[in-house]
Amino acid sequence: MKEENFSEWYNDVIERAGLSDKRYPVKGMNVWRPYGWKLMLNIDRIIREECNKRNFDEVCFPLLIPEEQFKKEKEHIKGFDEQVYWVTKAGENLLDVPLLLRPTSETAMYPMFALWVRSHSDLPLRTYQIVNTFRYETKQTRPFVRVREIHFFEAHTCHTDFEDAEHQIKEYYEILKNVAEKLCLPYILTKRPDWDKFAGAFYSVGIDTIMPSGKTLQIGSIHQYRENFSKAYDIKYEDEKGGHNFVHQTTYGMSERLVGAVIGVHGDEKGLVLPPGIAPVQIVIVPIFKKENEKTVKDECEKVKKMLKDFRVELDCRELTPGSKYYDWELKGVPLRIEIGPRDVKKQCAVFVRRDNGEKFEVKMEKIVEEAGKTLKNIEADLLKKAEKLLKSRLKKFEKLEEAKNFDGIVKTGWCGKENCGLDTEEKLDMKTLGAPVEKEKFKGKCASCGKDTDVVVYMARTY
Amino acid sequence: MKEENFSEWYNDVIERAGLSDKRYPVKGMNVWRPYGWKLMLNIDRIIREECNKRNFDEVCFPLLIPEEQFKKEKEHIKGFDEQVYWVTKAGENLLDVPLLLRPTSETAMYPMFALWVRSHSDLPLRTYQIVNTFRYETKQTRPFVRVREIHFFEAHTCHTDFEDAEHQIKEYYEILKNVAEKLCLPYILTKRPDWDKFAGAFYSVGIDTIMPSGKTLQIGSIHQYRENFSKAYDIKYEDEKGGHNFVHQTTYGMSERLVGAVIGVHGDEKGLVLPPGIAPVQIVIVPIFKKENEKTVKDECEKVKKMLKDFRVELDCRELTPGSKYYDWELKGVPLRIEIGPRDVKKQCAVFVRRDNGEKFEVKMEKIVEEAGKTLKNIEADLLKKAEKLLKSRLKKFEKLEEAKNFDGIVKTGWCGKENCGLDTEEKLDMKTLGAPVEKEKFKGKCASCGKDTDVVVYMARTY
Repeated sequence: MKEENFSEWYNDVIERAGLSDKRYPVKGMNVWRPYGWKLMLNIDRIIREECNKRNFDEVCFPLLIPEEQFKKEKEHIKGFDEQVYWVTKAGENLLDVPLLLRPTSETAMYPMFALWVRSHSDLPLRTYQIVNTFRYETKQTRPFVRVREIHFFEAHTCHTDFEDAEHQIKEYYEILKNVAEKLCLPYILTKRPDWDKFAGAFYSVGIDTIMPSGKTLQIGSIHQYRENFSKAYDIKYEDEKGGHNFVHQTTYGMSERLVGAVIGVHGDEKGLVLPPGIAPVQIVIVPIFKKENEKTVKDECEKVKKMLKDFRVELDCRELTPGSKYYDWELKGVPLRIEIGPRDVKKQCAVFVRRDNGEKFEVKMEKIVEEAGKTLKNIEADLLKKAEKLLKSRLKKFEKLEEAKNFDGIVKTGWCGKENCGLDTEEKLDMKTLGAPVEKEKFKGKCASCGKDTDVVVYMARTY
Repeated sequence: MKEENFSEWYNDVIERAGLSDKRYPVKGMNVWRPYGWKLMLNIDRIIREECNKRNFDEVCFPLLIPEEQFKKEKEHIKGFDEQVYWVTKAGENLLDVPLLLRPTSETAMYPMFALWVRSHSDLPLRTYQIVNTFRYETKQTRPFVRVREIHFFEAHTCHTDFEDAEHQIKEYYEILKNVAEKLCLPYILTKRPDWDKFAGAFYSVGIDTIMPSGKTLQIGSIHQYRENFSKAYDIKYEDEKGGHNFVHQTTYGMSERLVGAVIGVHGDEKGLVLPPGIAPVQIVIVPIFKKENEKTVKDECEKVKKMLKDFRVELDCRELTPGSKYYDWELKGVPLRIEIGPRDVKKQCAVFVRRDNGEKFEVKMEKIVEEAGKTLKNIEADLLKKAEKLLKSRLKKFEKLEEAKNFDGIVKTGWCGKENCGLDTEEKLDMKTLGAPVEKEKFKGKCASCGKDTDVVVYMARTY
């Protein structure tokens, strides 16, 4: 079903694995069920670790933004005006100043940054927060991928100059690399075309991965703002010579779409396949017994559970057949299953079963901790490899647009750099421009629209 | 200053220690600065641990609640109607259904609970979430204590019957005990009088601590709902005999007021005094050197920092005098300071200084890890003892109201049980009724209002 009807499979697996409940009476605002929320918190933890070890400061800004603050940066409002929720009333009173629910926090943070930044010694200022944000989506909603309340990570930094801000962006790439590795997600970085950059940005880098449907999913973005916002919000610092300058700013955002990508990229017919680094349960132990040896087997399982205390382990002693337990835990994507039966107790071993490829093998009791660690590492590496293969197979250079049109994936093609030509190609392919790859690629070809010689390649795709 | 003007001291220390910034342009909505947010996250972590080890499920529900859902339980609306923020517009469109920002999540969760609970085997259902909630406060706001966006922990449970729900409430007391111990906060539990119980509750237990001003601060509450909400939201289960019954429900809430209590109860003239269990920095190492021995001393400090890797340690190598460093870290309430100078290096020892009582003593290098752990434990125990002493000194039985009137603390007095008499006493004392202590106290006396003999004692106090 995943192959034939990805959308249906995706919704079905989210419901059956207990990740999210979309029956909440506001469309596009879903309930994080315990298993889904654990998964999200594990991803948050990894993001936090990456930021904290680089001495980012975690903060938490108010959700509500006064209209006046919001309207200071003109491009920014244009980009979001249609999408914001407005609080206009409290109790029975109309509010003097309408407040909006943050779609993102530039306009909440930057008036405060103007107070916090005084001198060059306050820079770089590097903060992040993980909060709920809101966008009034008019397109069809989809759990984790297009929702109206979004679980959102956003880093915001201020720097003395453009170069230092550029260094920050390089560091974002490192954070992204480490996070994506734990999620076993390959991705491509492209500089978005001007007509699709973030509202108020000098340039925007999109972080895209590919779903099995061949459509790309943007899982994050990185923006260079230059002085666009600091001028609007008057964020200035005094330099060593006593001069006053506007700071240069950057942001980096990722959202619950990371969960959507993990589900879509790794899942299979049996359900979720979760990367060990974020799986709420990394190992499930299933005892297999008849009445006469129930105690022996369960005791052994308890012993193994204790041995594996450094992992997230579940021992499943429910009164169900082993088969139904396998079914459940496969649906939930637990990376490693350990089966222990009476014969295993006697032989002092256990049977390992990998969720990702179904591989089954015997492990001696004294090797069980070491092998569990090794197996989880192997699963992580193999999941990433498989996903990379998918991405590679869906990324193809085309010379003729006619042939590209029916390709379910990312089309590489030439672009002369003119907006007209870009939009024309988008229309002809019924695709969006992801942009030119951040890591420059050698290219010689012709603009797909006007035919002019060009050394610029762009990536185009159908997107979620 | 703490003694003479507690309010001023409180606001000042919050600002100077970098906990919160109240210059955000919406009154009562403050910015969590990095140090304050770390403190809050440490408290959240402890709450999570306590809930998770008891197999509560963490969830995350949407912030916005449709008007219709909100209005199902009549008492509940009455209690909150004046206090809710309304989202009425999105982009340029008026919403068909106005949405409110949760002041608490009963009305968001219970329509879903009605879908989740089917049979007795689904019970007990025990969930919690840690989220932002909103109340349009009309009283004067105060950081952490009375704010309009509130960082909030809320547990919600469903049970087969009243007894099982009562057991749940006993378990809440255990969670509270463990959390409060880490915060070194003593508290009293009282059953709130009917006119002050939570909107929709069968009964409410208030969790109050006392601030040095003599006013009590409610740091949480526990509610028995019985079937009040399940009837309104149609949350039913099928029992073993095939009968259909409404579930019994409880809730337990605590908020960022915990931070307010920690600041107020433990702080002193020099600033914050943080309990080791929640301090963002538990130990600060300050090197003391002259130019000629700078490297030796700093190397030693690095060594000690590594030895103390299981604690949250900061090594302060800023180019400042030791004195200004002491000042900073005392302001920030770091429980233990370790000073290391050239003489200490030679003698292979270090000087420990306790934040709570200023005690100073030498520790041999080989004992440093052990002693650090012991000292932090002692600080924790002593902070709690000191706070308990404060609470005890501020809790007094009065026979004559005239004498009670000027008491800055909790007044114990008799009550016949009639609402009129309770309200009359409140007025005469200019205090609020906290309620009768949950742990029954032997009492023989007269109702403070009507003079009738009674064995019921109530606690009254001025409250934040």
